[in-house]
Amino acid sequence: MTVTYSSKVANATFFGFHRLLLKWRGSIYKLLYREFIVFAVLYTAISFMYRLLLTGAQKRYFEKLSIYCDRYAEQIPVTFVLGFYVTLVVNRWWNQFVNLPWPDRLMFLVSSSVHGSDEHGRLLRRTLMRYVNLTSLLIFRSVSTAVYKRFPTMDHVVEAGFMTADERKLFEHLKSPHLKYWVPFIWFGNLAAKARKEGRIRDSVDLQSLMTEMNRFRSWCSLLFGYDWVGIPLVYTQVVTLAVYTFFFACLIGRQFLDPTKGYSGHDLDLYIPIFTLLQFFFYAGWLKVAEQLINPFGEDDDDFETNWCIDRNLQVSLLAVDEMHMSLPKMKKDIYWD
Amino acid sequence: MTVTYSSKVANATFFGFHRLLLKWRGSIYKLLYREFIVFAVLYTAISFMYRLLLTGAQKRYFEKLSIYCDRYAEQIPVTFVLGFYVTLVVNRWWNQFVNLPWPDRLMFLVSSSVHGSDEHGRLLRRTLMRYVNLTSLLIFRSVSTAVYKRFPTMDHVVEAGFMTADERKLFEHLKSPHLKYWVPFIWFGNLAAKARKEGRIRDSVDLQSLMTEMNRFRSWCSLLFGYDWVGIPLVYTQVVTLAVYTFFFACLIGRQFLDPTKGYSGHDLDLYIPIFTLLQFFFYAGWLKVAEQLINPFGEDDDDFETNWCIDRNLQVSLLAVDEMHMSLPKMKKDIYWD
Amino acid sequence: MTVTYSSKVANATFFGFHRLLLKWRGSIYKLLYREFIVFAVLYTAISFMYRLLLTGAQKRYFEKLSIYCDRYAEQIPVTFVLGFYVTLVVNRWWNQFVNLPWPDRLMFLVSSSVHGSDEHGRLLRRTLMRYVNLTSLLIFRSVSTAVYKRFPTMDHVVEAGFMTADERKLFEHLKSPHLKYWVPFIWFGNLAAKARKEGRIRDSVDLQSLMTEMNRFRSWCSLLFGYDWVGIPLVYTQVVTLAVYTFFFACLIGRQFLDPTKGYSGHDLDLYIPIFTLLQFFFYAGWLKVAEQLINPFGEDDDDFETNWCIDRNLQVSLLAVDEMHMSLPKMKKDIYWD
Amino acid sequence: MTVTYSSKVANATFFGFHRLLLKWRGSIYKLLYREFIVFAVLYTAISFMYRLLLTGAQKRYFEKLSIYCDRYAEQIPVTFVLGFYVTLVVNRWWNQFVNLPWPDRLMFLVSSSVHGSDEHGRLLRRTLMRYVNLTSLLIFRSVSTAVYKRFPTMDHVVEAGFMTADERKLFEHLKSPHLKYWVPFIWFGNLAAKARKEGRIRDSVDLQSLMTEMNRFRSWCSLLFGYDWVGIPLVYTQVVTLAVYTFFFACLIGRQFLDPTKGYSGHDLDLYIPIFTLLQFFFYAGWLKVAEQLINPFGEDDDDFETNWCIDRNLQVSLLAVDEMHMSLPKMKKDIYWD
Amino acid sequence: MTVTYSSKVANATFFGFHRLLLKWRGSIYKLLYREFIVFAVLYTAISFMYRLLLTGAQKRYFEKLSIYCDRYAEQIPVTFVLGFYVTLVVNRWWNQFVNLPWPDRLMFLVSSSVHGSDEHGRLLRRTLMRYVNLTSLLIFRSVSTAVYKRFPTMDHVVEAGFMTADERKLFEHLKSPHLKYWVPFIWFGNLAAKARKEGRIRDSVDLQSLMTEMNRFRSWCSLLFGYDWVGIPLVYTQVVTLAVYTFFFACLIGRQFLDPTKGYSGHDLDLYIPIFTLLQFFFYAGWLKVAEQLINPFGEDDDDFETNWCIDRNLQVSLLAVDEMHMSLPKMKKDIYWD
Repeated sequence: MTVTYSSKVANATFFGFHRLLLKWRGSIYKLLYREFIVFAVLYTAISFMYRLLLTGAQKRYFEKLSIYCDRYAEQIPVTFVLGFYVTLVVNRWWNQFVNLPWPDRLMFLVSSSVHGSDEHGRLLRRTLMRYVNLTSLLIFRSVSTAVYKRFPTMDHVVEAGFMTADERKLFEHLKSPHLKYWVPFIWFGNLAAKARKEGRIRDSVDLQSLMTEMNRFRSWCSLLFGYDWVGIPLVYTQVVTLAVYTFFFACLIGRQFLDPTKGYSGHDLDLYIPIFTLLQFFFYAGWLKVAEQLINPFGEDDDDFETNWCIDRNLQVSLLAVDEMHMSLPKMKKDIYWD
Repeated sequence: MTVTYSSKVANATFFGFHRLLLKWRGSIYKLLYREFIVFAVLYTAISFMYRLLLTGAQKRYFEKLSIYCDRYAEQIPVTFVLGFYVTLVVNRWWNQFVNLPWPDRLMFLVSSSVHGSDEHGRLLRRTLMRYVNLTSLLIFRSVSTAVYKRFPTMDHVVEAGFMTADERKLFEHLKSPHLKYWVPFIWFGNLAAKARKEGRIRDSVDLQSLMTEMNRFRSWCSLLFGYDWVGIPLVYTQVVTLAVYTFFFACLIGRQFLDPTKGYSGHDLDLYIPIFTLLQFFFYAGWLKVAEQLINPFGEDDDDFETNWCIDRNLQVSLLAVDEMHMSLPKMKKDIYWD
Repeated sequence: MTVTYSSKVANATFFGFHRLLLKWRGSIYKLLYREFIVFAVLYTAISFMYRLLLTGAQKRYFEKLSIYCDRYAEQIPVTFVLGFYVTLVVNRWWNQFVNLPWPDRLMFLVSSSVHGSDEHGRLLRRTLMRYVNLTSLLIFRSVSTAVYKRFPTMDHVVEAGFMTADERKLFEHLKSPHLKYWVPFIWFGNLAAKARKEGRIRDSVDLQSLMTEMNRFRSWCSLLFGYDWVGIPLVYTQVVTLAVYTFFFACLIGRQFLDPTKGYSGHDLDLYIPIFTLLQFFFYAGWLKVAEQLINPFGEDDDDFETNWCIDRNLQVSLLAVDEMHMSLPKMKKDIYWD
Repeated sequence: MTVTYSSKVANATFFGFHRLLLKWRGSIYKLLYREFIVFAVLYTAISFMYRLLLTGAQKRYFEKLSIYCDRYAEQIPVTFVLGFYVTLVVNRWWNQFVNLPWPDRLMFLVSSSVHGSDEHGRLLRRTLMRYVNLTSLLIFRSVSTAVYKRFPTMDHVVEAGFMTADERKLFEHLKSPHLKYWVPFIWFGNLAAKARKEGRIRDSVDLQSLMTEMNRFRSWCSLLFGYDWVGIPLVYTQVVTLAVYTFFFACLIGRQFLDPTKGYSGHDLDLYIPIFTLLQFFFYAGWLKVAEQLINPFGEDDDDFETNWCIDRNLQVSLLAVDEMHMSLPKMKKDIYWD
Repeated sequence: MTVTYSSKVANATFFGFHRLLLKWRGSIYKLLYREFIVFAVLYTAISFMYRLLLTGAQKRYFEKLSIYCDRYAEQIPVTFVLGFYVTLVVNRWWNQFVNLPWPDRLMFLVSSSVHGSDEHGRLLRRTLMRYVNLTSLLIFRSVSTAVYKRFPTMDHVVEAGFMTADERKLFEHLKSPHLKYWVPFIWFGNLAAKARKEGRIRDSVDLQSLMTEMNRFRSWCSLLFGYDWVGIPLVYTQVVTLAVYTFFFACLIGRQFLDPTKGYSGHDLDLYIPIFTLLQFFFYAGWLKVAEQLINPFGEDDDDFETNWCIDRNLQVSLLAVDEMHMSLPKMKKDIYWD
């Protein structure tokens, strides 16, 4: 579930963001504590080795190695690579969010353009909306691991009421080596055309409005599918990951406190705990975690989109809107500003 | 309320922006003075401690610590992290502004397409516009703290004339575990369809124009809701905040003036007041404040959007446009260029 | 007036851009020469003071101060802050340009869809276009200082022929605490609806085409208004300005030529004229001037949009198009490729 | 074929991206191993030469040369140039993906708007969709090397069933010095207009819906063509390539381990294997490979778009949708939430 | 003419981009060789002067000057300024490309919606398309130097068959102080309205489709005009040019090889040819050349858009499409997948 904190930062206040530092759910600490422990343990182990186990000559060699690593750690362009990469990931993530398929636009049109309060009319409207919801469910199943877990087979889809047994038969009867998530849209178009012939949809203007809106819905679906199918090229992700991992590997050795008595420049002080290196670990590894979390927003991270909730909400709301609320209107009364 | 200064910078003049440095409302000083005082007091305290309280050996140790901190302060990539982050926040903020829902497009259509100057016609047009305004109010209540304070319950919504008692009953009667801000749009669609049947809306072309425009309005509403619901991932905000705070923590110690007589490189001078560090505090903390202010533009900051004003303006203007001004036309006269 | 130089850079030639360095209108020299003189005078004054007035001990102190300032000048992230900020300003500036309201799309539709070559027909088309131009004038008055100077009161608007006396009376009669620039659009809608009823506009398809186009025009107007109303947050502009000003303040002292005989590192040479510092002044201050010029493109800078010209052009052209040219057609003849 | 790994990164886990480092297909290793071997061999050769072949004086000269190269290697702005360039390439690549022409929107419209279940109706719908697929094939042939290999001549297009022999004759009969991929769209328009006259398409609203959708399809096609025709300017690509190659050339000499006994600063240690330089090779050359792979996504790289698959899928699905599935509808039944 | 190299980079291969380094047309070498020679000659001249002409004391002074210049050369933020500026230029360039006006969308509509195979019908369709092509020609004349050279006067436009003599008379008869490129669109609208009245265009739906498409074409035209009219502010271009030129001026002196025997740090080696400085010249000057080439893509550079070719292609293709191909249809036959 998305971690919403916007109400906490509505106003810019005294050290406004510091409150955010204390949250646990969806926080950097929760995401990073395991990596942090590994890093700290390795650092400590190397430190112990250097301080206690090595002989004098080995110490001298280690000191040179440490200085060498430190010098190169600074040359690794982690900041830039991460900056460009995370910007890319965040843009993709947000585009996926704004392209989540919501049936609301369609349900308004269906409710106002598909007429008839009798059972056939109700069935017509409900079926149209069900097809819409069915398509988005089929897409979500291939995009989201959480949805796939909930609907591992078509049986589950039928059971959950998104599809009737007849529809399923027809659907599976259709021979095609390709994905068939577009099939319910064909049914939608055919059903709408039939309703137009029967006069339930008044004219071509109303019909084309529906079809246009349906095609918009389809575009959202296929865009989501596209984001899942064609990710950021693997090479790019590998380059960034390698850069960050290498940096921390270099830090493990290069940021050790060396014996201050040896007079290495910048090594006058032995603090035991490399506070700034640990903080740097938080920045960079945290920045990479931003990417890890957002690169596939349909997983089960704290900050991922609640697709299962969406699916339920959409079916419930769209059936409500086109059936129970069809032509239901509050009595028109003069508002209080009527003069 | 938004701080408008564009008229002050209409022309590029001699040191054009310096006048902006002297404003108080919405300024960096107003936003930062408390943090600045804290930072200055801490810096001074540490300075006093170093100068007056520490013994010689402690001073030597502190000096080493200071140099160590200074060296790492420069390695913290505050500039980049802030640059990328603030760019993201500013883009989101502006997108929220351009997606504020304004009823103007709809009211032009309602005024010209929904006919009838009798009372029923007036009521029809007023009610349609009221539904539109009601929806945006429901969205604003969940998005903006300022609006929520003004309309804490549905009673306040009814009292303010956005909803009649009947509508409220129907609205609350509707059983759904999900948000119901879309309900007035269903009413809008149903009412428009009814008006079409009664001939108040002439044909499907006019009706679909209205429905398309209504759906556009809905998209604005739901996008605002989306921006509130799915914020910038908490991890990203934490990473940036940590980087900035760490930087200033390192500066508190690392930017102390050390005893010039000790000959530390870059410490030849004791100015007592670390003028450049204080200015750096203004840049970086100010930059972060930009983000804090814009990350939720629906709060009560000096620079936040005036949502309560919007709500009032929209209701007043849209009722005026579709009722009093319906079919009101100035007498057509030849303009002065008529030859 | 915009400074157009694209024809000068049509082809990439030998040192292609050097010709641009010699222009005066809209140039960096014209914009910056005053600031440059101030900077140079201050630099010289400090230089004289150091060389002639200070005693030996004071000189030593000044030299330390200079080195201190120089060191911190380099830490101020002017480049980045300016890069991100100017990118933001340039994007906003261009968006404002592409959203300038042009009546051309509407005038084509009015000319082809509003029929009747008699006087009433002519009046109808002229009045419709006049309303459109009136709205953009009302917007420009509140957005552009140049237009406001030309039309300080509604009297001037009436005199210039954008509004008749009757319209003005109706306009001012309307009681509303809010801006009323949308009123002419209501008139437009009402007039078009009336024309539809009279058969001057053939059917709803033609009418809705006109209304859609009008709404597009309105969106341009309100977007311009939005850009003026909600500028870049003051804090951001202050942060950038502070950074640049501080940098130059630090340079005034830190970039002085110190006595070469004292052997300060990097101070082996006394050139008297700090050529690179002056050039740096041109880069950074020039970059900031880009922002100053573009942050409000409706002023009277050399590079600002020529709004007054737009207003005249739009009225003249749109009346011409819908009246004199209505149904005027050159005789159709076979073109020279007719076989 | 695109390398999909999004399911592997659905959740942010312990060292989440490390699993990606172990993939081979589409990986940095597969793309870079040849360049890496060349680089390593050259480095080793120079190292041997320095250690074993050179005389004392030659060694001293080489050492100076190495230090000189190292100093300049750091001045080459590889990071930035690559950052800006790769961002540009990635944006273009993604835009090409979202503009791949899919016939789905059109096939829904054709299925629901072009009536008649008799043979003529079927033929009409199939032919319309075939024209659409034919156009995208013609575009793909000139854009994608993979498709061109499969369809080297128009014979292959006819054989594959995208075109009939008659159509081919007409197509080739048409004299024009320009590309003719737009011809099937003219046929589409003519055929649709004919169907409208025959009453197979009910009215102009339905017809214009089809034409609008066809024009959208055409825009996708021509945009793809545009991306292929007007690439990133050659100069830009050359600048970036030169920067990266120069950097590695400088590294070959500048990153050699020099004799530690000579006391060159930063050369206290002889590790034989320049681990960080090799890693840097992976970052930068890998980053450039990202660009190489994406600059033309219609080739046969592991990560390129599967255009041949698209072509087959589109023909198969669109014929299925408009023919076999035309007016096929599952029996409407009450869904399980019917109360 | 655009330099297309995408087929050369279809697959990522061994040192994939190196082949691009060997091209001449549109290459960095062709664009830069003159500047490069100037730079090299100046560098050599200064080098000779230093080595052969100067006396000992003058040499010492020159050496200090060189070190001074070198130090400041590194402070000039060429990389960033260029990065941000070139990104801006490239975006504008690409937007101009995707907004080139193509008549294809219109010609499909004209061919399918304007009926009549008799001479009047043919004339109608040809004239409509000619007006469209005429407008784009008028725009291209004011935007592109290449087109202006080909059509310096309206005589040339008439001769080339874009305009008849009658049209020209009417066009020039029209009194307006403003540009008149919109006039053919008024004719287009009037002619279409007349055709609607005569029944050649069936109904308002078809007419409005044409008008909408025409307005889209007009927007492309005016956007091109806007890009030409309002360029990147001169100041920005000057700032960037100054930065680059200053950098190279500083390099001329600062990158000289100083006498190694004097022991200046970083000057241990005399290579005579400053290989890295020359390469840096290629990067930065090449990057600036990217901007020079793209800032006005309507010139006659190797990489500029082929506007004259466009104009010919558009006229030829659009006449062909609406006349010869009007209602021409291949005989419908069953495709090979018909079962």
